Amino acid sequence: MVNFSFSSLAGRLKRSEIRELLKLTRHPETISFGGGLPDPAIFPYDVVKAASVKAIDECGRLALQYSPTEGEPFLKEQLRDFMGRQGVNVNTEDMLVVSSSQQSLDLISKVFIDPRDPIIVEKPTYVGAIQAFRAFDADFQGIELDQDGIDTEQLERVVIRLIDSDRKPKFVYLIPEFQNPSGITLSFERRKKVLEIANKYDLFIVEDSPYAELRYRGERIPPLYAMDTEGRVLLMKTFSKIFCPGFRLGWVLGPKPVIEKMVIAKQGTDLCTAAFVSMVAAFLLKDGHVDRQIEISKHLYRRKAAVMLDALDTLMPKEDDIWWSKPDGGMFLWLRLPECIDTLEMLNDAIGLKVAYVVGSGFFFDGSGANTMRLNYSYPSEDQIVKGIGRLGRIVRKRLRVSVM
Amino acid sequence: MVNFSFSSLAGRLKRSEIRELLKLTRHPETISFGGGLPDPAIFPYDVVKAASVKAIDECGRLALQYSPTEGEPFLKEQLRDFMGRQGVNVNTEDMLVVSSSQQSLDLISKVFIDPRDPIIVEKPTYVGAIQAFRAFDADFQGIELDQDGIDTEQLERVVIRLIDSDRKPKFVYLIPEFQNPSGITLSFERRKKVLEIANKYDLFIVEDSPYAELRYRGERIPPLYAMDTEGRVLLMKTFSKIFCPGFRLGWVLGPKPVIEKMVIAKQGTDLCTAAFVSMVAAFLLKDGHVDRQIEISKHLYRRKAAVMLDALDTLMPKEDDIWWSKPDGGMFLWLRLPECIDTLEMLNDAIGLKVAYVVGSGFFFDGSGANTMRLNYSYPSEDQIVKGIGRLGRIVRKRLRVSVM
Repeated sequence: MVNFSFSSLAGRLKRSEIRELLKLTRHPETISFGGGLPDPAIFPYDVVKAASVKAIDECGRLALQYSPTEGEPFLKEQLRDFMGRQGVNVNTEDMLVVSSSQQSLDLISKVFIDPRDPIIVEKPTYVGAIQAFRAFDADFQGIELDQDGIDTEQLERVVIRLIDSDRKPKFVYLIPEFQNPSGITLSFERRKKVLEIANKYDLFIVEDSPYAELRYRGERIPPLYAMDTEGRVLLMKTFSKIFCPGFRLGWVLGPKPVIEKMVIAKQGTDLCTAAFVSMVAAFLLKDGHVDRQIEISKHLYRRKAAVMLDALDTLMPKEDDIWWSKPDGGMFLWLRLPECIDTLEMLNDAIGLKVAYVVGSGFFFDGSGANTMRLNYSYPSEDQIVKGIGRLGRIVRKRLRVSVM
Repeated sequence: MVNFSFSSLAGRLKRSEIRELLKLTRHPETISFGGGLPDPAIFPYDVVKAASVKAIDECGRLALQYSPTEGEPFLKEQLRDFMGRQGVNVNTEDMLVVSSSQQSLDLISKVFIDPRDPIIVEKPTYVGAIQAFRAFDADFQGIELDQDGIDTEQLERVVIRLIDSDRKPKFVYLIPEFQNPSGITLSFERRKKVLEIANKYDLFIVEDSPYAELRYRGERIPPLYAMDTEGRVLLMKTFSKIFCPGFRLGWVLGPKPVIEKMVIAKQGTDLCTAAFVSMVAAFLLKDGHVDRQIEISKHLYRRKAAVMLDALDTLMPKEDDIWWSKPDGGMFLWLRLPECIDTLEMLNDAIGLKVAYVVGSGFFFDGSGANTMRLNYSYPSEDQIVKGIGRLGRIVRKRLRVSVM
């Protein structure tokens, strides 16, 4: 019998309950609002094939070799130009190519978090961020969200309290656009306020922005990274939502001292990002296929979101304390049910009726939010959305009846 | 002015001196024995193009989507069959697909190392392992190598000493085949001895095996993983040396409790390995292209190693205390010079004469080995090998003359 002596980090690791539950819902007939997957029906398969051939034909030697830890220069140029077309001017020297946004979260944790260091996050926030920060034993400080994003008054109060007890937060982690899981967008006014607070108290901001390009309604708001004048924002970007998740490719932009530390941390983490995928992605960007894919996705997700919102209006019970977000982009919608309903418990009913969602409490570092759930509308078909919301409505109605009795 | 407050991990991060120095040697006319790169002249470009097209044609939806954290089942089956053909029978349930061997080292560190935990490594050992383990503040305990690999008597003494002071090592990290950097292979007898010690003292062994398939001389020796009967070995494998480094794809095999922890750690590290690259690699394996590439590589590296050994015989000064390894496979050769020569200092002469090597001290966690260097023979052409060793010989000769004066 072997006695393994694991680390304290290993002791903090928990299998994501969300991911485990999602496995139960993988019945072929189950309608899933669970994952965060793009619709594979619109993946541009031929275009990826052509870009792969081109990557080998035009940069084969580089594409199959190790790449610089900072990222393939050719890809970085294409990313710079892409961001310029999206209205954000950046510099390739401030950029690090990463092997997924999850890797950015891991590198940020490595570079900033010592055990019990306070960090500030939204409540709720991205489950993968909770996982990465928790591994390094961060002390989570949560700030509530309203329709305009993070509550900046609470933010300032918490910052003051932490600084007063000599525990300045290592960073503030925000998802300003179509937040995962809430679907909420941080307003322009609030962004200015967040930066004011950051400047006043010398805070560092990590801006996770996987969906910003998928805005299908309303005016584009500049990222905090572009509004910042003091070099205190790190911007996290990824291919997963704007093109496809199968590449594991992302990039970050940030102040030089931070990027430099992240580059060295990345050397020990995976040495470099895959040159092959980098070259394929570079050609996809250069030839306009990523921009085109964003237009196709926006068009489709706008329609699917509308279908889901209509279905909710029609098929959810009319109760004051049932609320859902009305996102302007992205892939998710957030549903809050009456407090008497525990969405984790309710999942059994849902599995029985062959519909799946993500239990909301996974997005709260403190396990709160028991009456919430995240609904994804990018992956299911329009027909499935209507059927699935119908099933969910029936389940909620039944639960409400039970709780009244 | 922003005040960044980095973690203690960030404080331990050092840019790899080796990698920084290598940048200085990137003059187009410089002959480089520096990197650990396969020869790009033998990369099977057309085969990669065809496999990319096939991956999309036959598994497009899976190839562009997220994959399970454990790895794509189709790839895992191909890896199992591949290892079977290499004489190692494995089970896909004991396997985790990783995004490079460097990631395996990161995950192992996360799962095992608390600050100042002792771990045992070879002296010298792989620089990337030193980097990964150091990030998590491991306490390195080094064991000397001789022609047959790690000194097992010293190993047992160190283990006893550690256990006596209640500091059992978290693991023993070994590179049994054509060790990087020394080129030395752990003999079959020594492997038995290592496992005996592991069983006796309940040790866990991490077996890093990137080159085992690249044996071009002598009998194949089974990996410790296959010889182990108690489930105390983790085997690390990678595509980088047997096919190409541009995929960032590796796999590990190990005891279930360890694999399980590594899977959860990987969720927070990069969620999953790229599905696209996994599918491309699966078809390359299935269609026999990886096996073929190994044969081509062995044939070429055998010849190149012979050329380098000949050149050393002819062009290095004849001194008793100049020694080099005679590897049976892999990509590296290890050169030990008289103690009066500091290879870091000598690198300036080398850059002047347009020849590059890797300074040996980078492979010692304690910075020793100042009179050693690693020479790579897989990347340079045969002509370059002869010319480059000639230049090195001249530099060493000059240094010896200076030190006599």
